[in-house]
Amino acid sequence: MKEIEAAIGLIRRGADDLLIETELVEKLKTGRPLRVKAGFDPTAPDLHLGHTVLLNKLRHFQELGHHVMFLIGDFTATIGDPSGKNATRPPLSKEQVLANAATYKEQVFKILDPEKTEICFNSAWMSQLDAAAMIRLAAQQTVARMLERDDFAKRYANEQPISIHEFLYPLCQGYDSVAMRADIELGGTDQRFNLLMGRELQKHYDQTPQCVLMMPLLEGLDGVNKMSKSLGNYIGIAEPPKEIFGKTMSVSDTLMWRYYELLSFRSSAEIAALKAEVEAGRNPRDVKVMLAQEFVARFHGKQAADDALADFEARFRKNEIPDDIPEVRVAVGDGLPIFKILKEAGLTGTTSEATRMIEQGAVKLDGERVEDRNLVLKAGGKAVLQVGKRKFAAVVLE
Amino acid sequence: MKEIEAAIGLIRRGADDLLIETELVEKLKTGRPLRVKAGFDPTAPDLHLGHTVLLNKLRHFQELGHHVMFLIGDFTATIGDPSGKNATRPPLSKEQVLANAATYKEQVFKILDPEKTEICFNSAWMSQLDAAAMIRLAAQQTVARMLERDDFAKRYANEQPISIHEFLYPLCQGYDSVAMRADIELGGTDQRFNLLMGRELQKHYDQTPQCVLMMPLLEGLDGVNKMSKSLGNYIGIAEPPKEIFGKTMSVSDTLMWRYYELLSFRSSAEIAALKAEVEAGRNPRDVKVMLAQEFVARFHGKQAADDALADFEARFRKNEIPDDIPEVRVAVGDGLPIFKILKEAGLTGTTSEATRMIEQGAVKLDGERVEDRNLVLKAGGKAVLQVGKRKFAAVVLE
Repeated sequence: MKEIEAAIGLIRRGADDLLIETELVEKLKTGRPLRVKAGFDPTAPDLHLGHTVLLNKLRHFQELGHHVMFLIGDFTATIGDPSGKNATRPPLSKEQVLANAATYKEQVFKILDPEKTEICFNSAWMSQLDAAAMIRLAAQQTVARMLERDDFAKRYANEQPISIHEFLYPLCQGYDSVAMRADIELGGTDQRFNLLMGRELQKHYDQTPQCVLMMPLLEGLDGVNKMSKSLGNYIGIAEPPKEIFGKTMSVSDTLMWRYYELLSFRSSAEIAALKAEVEAGRNPRDVKVMLAQEFVARFHGKQAADDALADFEARFRKNEIPDDIPEVRVAVGDGLPIFKILKEAGLTGTTSEATRMIEQGAVKLDGERVEDRNLVLKAGGKAVLQVGKRKFAAVVLE
Repeated sequence: MKEIEAAIGLIRRGADDLLIETELVEKLKTGRPLRVKAGFDPTAPDLHLGHTVLLNKLRHFQELGHHVMFLIGDFTATIGDPSGKNATRPPLSKEQVLANAATYKEQVFKILDPEKTEICFNSAWMSQLDAAAMIRLAAQQTVARMLERDDFAKRYANEQPISIHEFLYPLCQGYDSVAMRADIELGGTDQRFNLLMGRELQKHYDQTPQCVLMMPLLEGLDGVNKMSKSLGNYIGIAEPPKEIFGKTMSVSDTLMWRYYELLSFRSSAEIAALKAEVEAGRNPRDVKVMLAQEFVARFHGKQAADDALADFEARFRKNEIPDDIPEVRVAVGDGLPIFKILKEAGLTGTTSEATRMIEQGAVKLDGERVEDRNLVLKAGGKAVLQVGKRKFAAVVLE
């Protein structure tokens, strides 16, 4: 029972919801490897970290010895949008699907163990289904139940058209679970309705209904919106090492811990230890560097991670503004030229030293080199002034 | 053009609605035989006259030289009710469908010309359709449009479940029109929604949309409710000649003309002539007899029709009350025994003659033999009194 408790702990890590834990415990008790299903859309195989939340969870199941079925939903993708209303969803050819699948494999096996992963295409069973079977499938759900799904409910209320085939897609997804005899299906919280459809259809087909594990949608770099290509707040797993490293370093400390929970291969215990160290005074930047290195190493290898770190330090760390800049108040009134402000702030001994440093290009205002000694700053706000490599002052302009 | 006008006249005879006449005129102008579709449910091949309204209309098309396609909807019938909610709709086996089709043929060829009739089974094309094709078909309609159908709208409003497959059936019916390249489809007014679905799908498949001819639901013998087995107000076409004859004779004069229009093979001109004769004083019963004979002859042959007439006359006509009974007023006050009333009404010369006739069993009150000479009738209402075979009086009791 301790083992099962530990397994449930790992399975629940970062998850939004698990339906139904008691059922999952029963399945785990049998000791047999569970059949773990997760479906992926073959139209967009260019993954970002948001997509890997699910892959990471699948990895946990592999660690626990279960059988992961990576489902490529090619059946509906080859249909496209038959209502013709969505020009951005052209049907995919078999060749495109296979090409995309190859790209997928390349990407997902950076996270999943290929030995323990079965790649499935739902066309394998869906293309065997005839119209009569589709009708029988459709008989398993009611219109009212389907209109309970959030997006359908909203569109119906707003009198936006819903094509009838859109009601068939959740049924197809549910039928995949039947065909795959899934013990558990993973998906985003936004997939709740479709995930439960699998449970219902399995019951109808006299199978033990699958459990459902819902993972949250990963926040993007801004920490607010979900990570997405269109919002530009993403880290693509095929991006160059420097990009992955830099973008990771740009996230807030709070978001860093979220990424650790959902994306890191480190154990919960290790992460807890790191958290304790930061609370005890360790610079969170160090911990962020570890995460950035982990990501780069995962997608580009250890060497690339080390190089990215070196590069990052060369580009940013050496030039960065220290955390502990002294704050200085300078009365500038209606305006004071910068060579005078430098002296007033104590960054140079004299105004002529200030003028000389500006001429040498050694003075920066808010990170930008100052070219004109007569640049006038007026009262209001704060300016970070830097002279040479080491001398800083946060000047409050009064 | 006169020919086309005449054709439209015959097509419109008894019809509720024709969509769209101008389109039909264009099709008729081509001079080619039109492909005329009508669908029938293979679960109930035991036809009554209500079903033959459509058959009779198909016959009109045959008279005009067109190609009639009698569609047996076996595809959905073999599916039954896959939601399992309707135990009264078990799936039919192939064998049952074929047996029912044989019964159908036997019955419908009493109305249709077998030479000009093509019997179709929609399983021929529907069983070729795969799930993907079904999905594409479903994409041609929206949920909102489907929920406009009367019965769906009511059930949805009343929170009665509608299974999703019920949305697929009208699409299947519409697809039949595509597969059959129908120029016109016939159906009951209650089929309006499904008939129009054929038009829409044909447009999608780049076919000229079919015209739609809607026939009324035939009133049953009561002249009020639609003819149906469950209401018992029907004439089954497999019923014995005497039943068909007698039931036809039982309908009202108004309903008789309705049946003439919708069911008789007589031309509109002939029927108009009969109407004129009745208006000029001919007994409508004679015209009803002609209709009853036509029905019996159609389903059982000429000899059976003659026999049924002879039998009917023997059983009813000989005993019936003449149309021209004299009306007599008799003052009965608080009550008068019948032997006195008979004399007052002038049906017997004396009260003792009245008594004797009663004792001989020769007196009837409203068709029932009178046994008791002292039977007292009170004021109010009317009583038909009969003495012997020929003497009648309608006695107003005052």
